[in-house]
Amino acid sequence: MVKPRHIELGGRPVGAGAFPLIITPLVGRTPAGIETELEAILPKQPDMLEWRIDFFECIADRAQVLDTARSIRRAAGAVPILLTRRNVAEGGQAVPTSEQAVVGLLASACEAQCVDLIDYELSNPAADMARLRAVSTANGVALVASYHNFECTPDVDILVDRFAEAGRRRADVAKVAVMPKDPQDVLTLLAATYRASQTIDLPLISMSMGGLGALSRVVGWMYGSAATFAVGKDSSAPGQITVEALRAMMSQMRHAVTGR
Amino acid sequence: MVKPRHIELGGRPVGAGAFPLIITPLVGRTPAGIETELEAILPKQPDMLEWRIDFFECIADRAQVLDTARSIRRAAGAVPILLTRRNVAEGGQAVPTSEQAVVGLLASACEAQCVDLIDYELSNPAADMARLRAVSTANGVALVASYHNFECTPDVDILVDRFAEAGRRRADVAKVAVMPKDPQDVLTLLAATYRASQTIDLPLISMSMGGLGALSRVVGWMYGSAATFAVGKDSSAPGQITVEALRAMMSQMRHAVTGR
Repeated sequence: MVKPRHIELGGRPVGAGAFPLIITPLVGRTPAGIETELEAILPKQPDMLEWRIDFFECIADRAQVLDTARSIRRAAGAVPILLTRRNVAEGGQAVPTSEQAVVGLLASACEAQCVDLIDYELSNPAADMARLRAVSTANGVALVASYHNFECTPDVDILVDRFAEAGRRRADVAKVAVMPKDPQDVLTLLAATYRASQTIDLPLISMSMGGLGALSRVVGWMYGSAATFAVGKDSSAPGQITVEALRAMMSQMRHAVTGR
Repeated sequence: MVKPRHIELGGRPVGAGAFPLIITPLVGRTPAGIETELEAILPKQPDMLEWRIDFFECIADRAQVLDTARSIRRAAGAVPILLTRRNVAEGGQAVPTSEQAVVGLLASACEAQCVDLIDYELSNPAADMARLRAVSTANGVALVASYHNFECTPDVDILVDRFAEAGRRRADVAKVAVMPKDPQDVLTLLAATYRASQTIDLPLISMSMGGLGALSRVVGWMYGSAATFAVGKDSSAPGQITVEALRAMMSQMRHAVTGR
């Protein structure tokens, strides 16, 4: 069995050591929309919230983003918040602001210490990643360095190198999410995660997307993924699993695997 | 997604086309023990019963074996019965009878038409397999040609060749069950099943055994396995899953994969 490598904040494992963590995205377009989402999601006790600010209408208004982050934190209590602007090339929403403004926004969120982790894509300029690494470290915010491919699933060697690249950029967590074209691609993602878990000293998050990839959300932890994403409200597309269903499936799978 | 290749009897898919079938073993030592098992198992509506006669005390008494098979059939109604003597080399129980007597017993069960399928290991002498193929065909009984490895999981190429060997022996179903040593081995079994499903025109059954392999019982159908094994009573070892739990997990997984 794989040795769990937990995501940590301030030297302590998130989620009281749960493996994997369940992360639920917030995709509201407005503060009111996010408030409604939180009311639906928080009772389900996710281990982490990912605020996807590329969905947020006022992403260009730095003060409003920081205020909303503070509101999320007040509502979420001890549940850590991961701040993510997913770029268009990696499956995110188009945003009415420049890349430099986004980097500045993420840096401000670190300085304001109103989030616990930030996500930044490995495909972005190295200088921007380095800047965010410096400001996040200075403010006790963790950095997730991520790679997404919505077109296909590259070979195991390439995927392992994406995890390794996150380590070379001194990220705290390495994330890889890729799209399968056939059932074999899901095995490729799991195999790459497992090999990375044996060779890279960093907590990993991985998933195979879409309907075909759904099983990776349920069994990824057995291959070294420290977190899995679940939707807070009803699933709206194949591959999306609700927090309750994912928790139940993982619990049954764990029982089947360990007899406990 | 993989194209389902159903196990058929008399030209019709077993289990009204369910994919995968849930097969539950009977491992009672006596007719009374088997009766008790059936009372526990049949209400759970497995799609097939596998009577493991290597557990049966009176395996050397041909008349008693055939009588007991008829009793199982009466109790099971429309649920097909797979008759299996698993040999010691492939994980079965030692039996107080010769290999030739076992072959004769399986042939008699075909002639008596008191079972629907028989299982015979590919590792046995080719002449015995050919004899059982002939007598099973003559009596409308299906033949499962099987390969088990309790030591390890051979490479994909070797596993695919085991499935193909079942085809070369003119079996109706090819079965491969192997033991994983690490999480990668489970992926290897699934990858081999998937490749065989693309290249071999035969229904397949596959599984990765033990606790580590449990996930193969839940998702094997996505890789081409037409059946999965579940225990009828409470599970007694890691990797064993009850009929109810397996059905629930597969239903949730199917929903996650297809959105339906």
